[in-house]
Amino acid sequence: MTLQLYGFWRSNAAFRVRVALSLKELAFEEIDVDILSGRQFDAAYAQVNAEHAVPTLVHGGHRLSQSLAIIEYLDEFQPEPALLPSAPRERAYARSLALVSSADAHPLTVPRVRKYLGEAFSADGAAIERWCRHWVAEGLAAYERLLDQRPAAPFALGQDVTIADICIAGQVALADVYGMDRAVFPAVDALASRCFALPAFTDAHPFQQSGYKAANER
Amino acid sequence: MTLQLYGFWRSNAAFRVRVALSLKELAFEEIDVDILSGRQFDAAYAQVNAEHAVPTLVHGGHRLSQSLAIIEYLDEFQPEPALLPSAPRERAYARSLALVSSADAHPLTVPRVRKYLGEAFSADGAAIERWCRHWVAEGLAAYERLLDQRPAAPFALGQDVTIADICIAGQVALADVYGMDRAVFPAVDALASRCFALPAFTDAHPFQQSGYKAANER
Repeated sequence: MTLQLYGFWRSNAAFRVRVALSLKELAFEEIDVDILSGRQFDAAYAQVNAEHAVPTLVHGGHRLSQSLAIIEYLDEFQPEPALLPSAPRERAYARSLALVSSADAHPLTVPRVRKYLGEAFSADGAAIERWCRHWVAEGLAAYERLLDQRPAAPFALGQDVTIADICIAGQVALADVYGMDRAVFPAVDALASRCFALPAFTDAHPFQQSGYKAANER
Repeated sequence: MTLQLYGFWRSNAAFRVRVALSLKELAFEEIDVDILSGRQFDAAYAQVNAEHAVPTLVHGGHRLSQSLAIIEYLDEFQPEPALLPSAPRERAYARSLALVSSADAHPLTVPRVRKYLGEAFSADGAAIERWCRHWVAEGLAAYERLLDQRPAAPFALGQDVTIADICIAGQVALADVYGMDRAVFPAVDALASRCFALPAFTDAHPFQQSGYKAANER
């Protein structure tokens, strides 16, 4: 069954879904929605996703939104390899780690927030960039504290890659986008290096997407 | 088994967990962490929750964080009444609705964000209040569009209350905290009214918490 992903190189949530699809060896076609140019607000895309956000995954004509909901769905219809542990407490821990980036850090740096900072506070490009770097670092710092409390061995939940690693690696990919130094967060950096040694993560990285490459060749 | 919830009247994420506990008829003791005074950053609480955030649920000595991860956990160890539908696509839709508030709208109005607006942009109280109202309204508007596309009947997923209703009602409770007019979003308002007709929702509302009442008696 064909899978279509409405995404974009710059979307951290699309990164998460790309990794999950790839780990599960599910082939997909990615349709670019240029969120830096506001194409997520176009009337045509509003029919696809009423929240005006990427990603949207289309599975056999059925549309799904929100990266974590999509990954849980993928884990239900294609259980192997499992992206959530089987023990309830471990599942809860994996989900809570995933939410640190998805629900706390990353939402503060998305395009509509950057735009509104300009409107509400006359923030210029440099001020908006500082804002984003602050919250990317806050997210990484929270992960660093959490990984100090329970070290990754070798992944956040143990031997297997889970939704937690996908979101932690996503937060690191955000740091890459802002040209930030990962080494300040050594436990996060080490975990991310293990993740990005896997093709599913490498191939999903923002800088590996055709949209990024095209924009940087201009 | 005793359940302890580290929460606060003003925490929207704690509201979600209170509703879930109550729907499942699980007795709990709530321990206030005054997030308006920064108590979530205290060293003692950092031992409880390394992310420096509420809520934390303690279940038989085991700590869980992040409201959506906690609710999924509660749904696993106490399956009735189910807070997630059984069909995978419906589960995905319920989770995606939950994430509109939890991962997109609500994170923009939390205390650490309000504080940093002051630091980064010298935003005063009125400007910070406008910022919060903007994002509360954006979240409600997204829900209104989604409920227009698939009307609640009577709840977001159908006959039964799910995690989606909890998060939509939470977004409405945020509007109450900011004294905003729900009627601008009629589909959301109607759904919220059905939710808040249930004691589990009414009793969890910010204004019904002892911390709110104490602060407003002063």
